[in-house]
Amino acid sequence: MTQPAAGHLRHLLDLEHLSASQLDALLRRAQTFADGAHAPAALTGVAVCTLFFEPSTRTRLSFQLAAQRLGAHILNFDASTSSATKGETDLDTFRTLQAMGVRGFVVRHKSDGAVAALAAAANPGVALLNAGDGRSHHPTQGLLDMLTLRQAKGEDFSKLKVVIVGDVKHSRVARSDLHVLRKLGCGEIRVCGPASLLPDDDTLHGCIVSHDFDSALEGVDALMMLRLQRERMAEGLVTSLEDYHRDYGLTETRLRRAAPDAIVMHPGPMNRGVEITDAVADGPQSRVLAQVANGVAVRMAALEGLLA
Amino acid sequence: MTQPAAGHLRHLLDLEHLSASQLDALLRRAQTFADGAHAPAALTGVAVCTLFFEPSTRTRLSFQLAAQRLGAHILNFDASTSSATKGETDLDTFRTLQAMGVRGFVVRHKSDGAVAALAAAANPGVALLNAGDGRSHHPTQGLLDMLTLRQAKGEDFSKLKVVIVGDVKHSRVARSDLHVLRKLGCGEIRVCGPASLLPDDDTLHGCIVSHDFDSALEGVDALMMLRLQRERMAEGLVTSLEDYHRDYGLTETRLRRAAPDAIVMHPGPMNRGVEITDAVADGPQSRVLAQVANGVAVRMAALEGLLA
Amino acid sequence: MTQPAAGHLRHLLDLEHLSASQLDALLRRAQTFADGAHAPAALTGVAVCTLFFEPSTRTRLSFQLAAQRLGAHILNFDASTSSATKGETDLDTFRTLQAMGVRGFVVRHKSDGAVAALAAAANPGVALLNAGDGRSHHPTQGLLDMLTLRQAKGEDFSKLKVVIVGDVKHSRVARSDLHVLRKLGCGEIRVCGPASLLPDDDTLHGCIVSHDFDSALEGVDALMMLRLQRERMAEGLVTSLEDYHRDYGLTETRLRRAAPDAIVMHPGPMNRGVEITDAVADGPQSRVLAQVANGVAVRMAALEGLLA
Repeated sequence: MTQPAAGHLRHLLDLEHLSASQLDALLRRAQTFADGAHAPAALTGVAVCTLFFEPSTRTRLSFQLAAQRLGAHILNFDASTSSATKGETDLDTFRTLQAMGVRGFVVRHKSDGAVAALAAAANPGVALLNAGDGRSHHPTQGLLDMLTLRQAKGEDFSKLKVVIVGDVKHSRVARSDLHVLRKLGCGEIRVCGPASLLPDDDTLHGCIVSHDFDSALEGVDALMMLRLQRERMAEGLVTSLEDYHRDYGLTETRLRRAAPDAIVMHPGPMNRGVEITDAVADGPQSRVLAQVANGVAVRMAALEGLLA
Repeated sequence: MTQPAAGHLRHLLDLEHLSASQLDALLRRAQTFADGAHAPAALTGVAVCTLFFEPSTRTRLSFQLAAQRLGAHILNFDASTSSATKGETDLDTFRTLQAMGVRGFVVRHKSDGAVAALAAAANPGVALLNAGDGRSHHPTQGLLDMLTLRQAKGEDFSKLKVVIVGDVKHSRVARSDLHVLRKLGCGEIRVCGPASLLPDDDTLHGCIVSHDFDSALEGVDALMMLRLQRERMAEGLVTSLEDYHRDYGLTETRLRRAAPDAIVMHPGPMNRGVEITDAVADGPQSRVLAQVANGVAVRMAALEGLLA
Repeated sequence: MTQPAAGHLRHLLDLEHLSASQLDALLRRAQTFADGAHAPAALTGVAVCTLFFEPSTRTRLSFQLAAQRLGAHILNFDASTSSATKGETDLDTFRTLQAMGVRGFVVRHKSDGAVAALAAAANPGVALLNAGDGRSHHPTQGLLDMLTLRQAKGEDFSKLKVVIVGDVKHSRVARSDLHVLRKLGCGEIRVCGPASLLPDDDTLHGCIVSHDFDSALEGVDALMMLRLQRERMAEGLVTSLEDYHRDYGLTETRLRRAAPDAIVMHPGPMNRGVEITDAVADGPQSRVLAQVANGVAVRMAALEGLLA
């Protein structure tokens, strides 16, 4: 569905349906934006709407900046707090905005598959970008993570060892990263976290799974730390923040087990002192702010590719 | 007040004070925008503020898109949730924004006459557009409905039979439509709904009033369905949604009583399964999304006419 | 910190660190904007973010209009209600937006010094404008008040008598005005209010302090009325609005004690009937709306000076 005959992307709903060459083209274009390329008129007159059924100011602003830099008109529809819906179905909300002439939709939803369901109702010329749905997909996060990895480690991932740490079970970031790391031929993917926070389906196929953080860190080239949502405690999946930090918090001491030039990534916002210490978050191996910067570049490439 | 000597509109507060030729000019210009006309620099450097004392994301976004397409700077002031007012009078809020240099105000208010009251304090060169006040006026909705009717039925309304169905009593949409249908010479205006939801003043003068939906539908060329606000039940004006749907819900079966080429309109958001069924809302006679599209076109024409 | 070697402003955090010549240059440039000067491309491609940890729609919109008129891209981050922070530190929120490429930050915070703390983490080329922090600083308010005074009284303040009336203790507006009035050589600064609302530190050094409004008004050239926050009653600092109005409310009768051409200022929003009557607020000596207009001009000058 996301990949018509000619290889031109219609929507960006997930990363599974992109070919390696499509991924590469997006990342190359994103790198030019990260390097300062301008395209201030690429989307002149095009209306792009952030349609968030689940709030996320950070992601919304990143897309907004990307759209503005391409010259688009930007609208924000916060469906999670809006009175506008008044019992309206998500589909009617989407169709209404589409009828107004919006051509690009940046959609976040708490339900798996909800963005793809809306995409199925899109008119010709209208493109949807999934800004995160349920636990499933967050394709621009996967892309920005790959761009960050490339900048640090080059384009050949075949010798890379990457570890993803934390609440993989509930994380669309982890799922997007796993898909795209596999597609780009990452040499070794490790996944580490407490059993209660790791998925028991086929999400982790091909990964080396461990509950011991210290051993999982040995010699890795990149660490992808996940945010620990505080509601995991209320749900009984984690005993305490202190216990979690002791077992899965990334400290300077632990980081020494990784390769000397290993990079540390985190999708933000960080729980400092829980999954990551200040010293690591702000240390020389951290690429957290590079990820943020790459987020705008990747979203410019995606918006341009779909709508220009 | 809205119609100075030269026939140039100062504000758009209602449709009563517009002449038939002014209405026609607005609708003709709106049609050019609906057909794809561009005027990206008409309002360059002009600041337009949506000033909503009652929330309505849908209407706000429609005006915002219209203003952006004319090149205006757009500001949003949600006075219903803003802390900015802090006990400030509506008039001081308006005067403050006016002093900042805002030239166009799109105002929604829950009180009848509140928008006109603000317009009386407008400086020269400043224009107000009523985006709905109380139960009184919603002129751009009236205009977009007329544009939708014209597109389907032509400009001569003298042979048209139109029925407005539902909660006319509390509806500014219905009042705006009634005014403009009369002014444009609509052949026959029927109004249908339970007695508890029909006004007992002179709102319906000249209309054929009925409480029986089936007979009211016979041979009509256009149906204007109104949204049933759920608070009407708490107020005891409607016994239940089920009862309302049984008596006044538009189904495919009922629609067959209308003329074969009758069109179905609804201002949105729809309560599917209450005043309208899915089959009708999404069926071939529905013009609901055309209304939404026409809303942007009509608002572009109004903004341009008042501010360019 | 705000004043590097060359005299070029890096940030606008307060008015204390500006030289008289820097103040003068800002005010002169602001006057050209007040007179209608245009600079629609001064900030083309520059992203400016309003980052408000304390809500203030009025100030936010004034900065937004100023930024739009200079051609900037504008983003709004309402950190007081945003879910985006999710326990994130203010500094991480700031660094994240900075990493996205935002170059100008308009920051409001309820804590004294919080804006300066963020400025210390700014990258080269990034500028912060303090839009009010705690009880300390509100530099653009001080500037707009001075611009309003100049327009009415000329540039030589040495013979001017100015009185600041009301809750000076909790007011960043008063502190900013006091600093800049001193720096611009105001002849006589009087401060008047109940003892419970006047500061007991060195804020008032050099001022003539009085608790008697009538005598404090004698012969003044300008009155700066402060807003009485209603929470002062809950705190027991004011007995009632009626008492406050009797003792410190500005009426037409009282205003006659001032110089015949005295001007009345108020930062807004006004509590009509409390610190000021309608007759004065809307009377010929009121400069309240001129202040609002000057606010946009001053913010244009500041944004241009820091970011162009």
